[in-house]
Amino acid sequence: MSLARTPEPPYWAVIFTSERTDGDHGYAQMAQQMETLAQRQPGYLGMEHARDEQTGVTVSYWRSEEDVRRWKADLDHQQAQKLGREQWYRRYQVRVCRVERAYGFER
Amino acid sequence: MSLARTPEPPYWAVIFTSERTDGDHGYAQMAQQMETLAQRQPGYLGMEHARDEQTGVTVSYWRSEEDVRRWKADLDHQQAQKLGREQWYRRYQVRVCRVERAYGFER
Repeated sequence: MSLARTPEPPYWAVIFTSERTDGDHGYAQMAQQMETLAQRQPGYLGMEHARDEQTGVTVSYWRSEEDVRRWKADLDHQQAQKLGREQWYRRYQVRVCRVERAYGFER
Repeated sequence: MSLARTPEPPYWAVIFTSERTDGDHGYAQMAQQMETLAQRQPGYLGMEHARDEQTGVTVSYWRSEEDVRRWKADLDHQQAQKLGREQWYRRYQVRVCRVERAYGFER
């Protein structure tokens, strides 16, 4: 399942776009741990992710802005953010958004 | 350049996540055309994209909600959307969001 099943808007989205450094440096394992940890947070609604050679885009969905703030402040997540800046990312951008409308298509 | 240089929030983001069908069917050429066309639209601020075997995530950024609506209604873009449903996508989800805050990191 690669697309998240989110409820009717409004809800919140955190768009995380990044350029990785070369090599893994424990990244894959930590990314998996963070996804598992996020799933246990209050207000977590889902996550979508794609990565190619140049860019990674991860979008996580949350019930409220308070849930977004709590996840950012989580201590294990803070540690992963620190490692990200030290080792895994050349650049990244985080955008916190309120989802106003949504629609989809399925074959 | 894989990360978009967007202005201070607020602005708008359209998160397009998709699962592709097998084969290309003219997709790569049309994706390039649509990116070029989007860049010419009023209010276009940038685009970020990643794709792996399972999932594609494209985020486009816009100055206002009106700019988002105008781009969705563009006739060439409408034609691409139709081909997308007929040929390229198994499923997709579009989420229209207001970006409330943003921050980044650069090495």
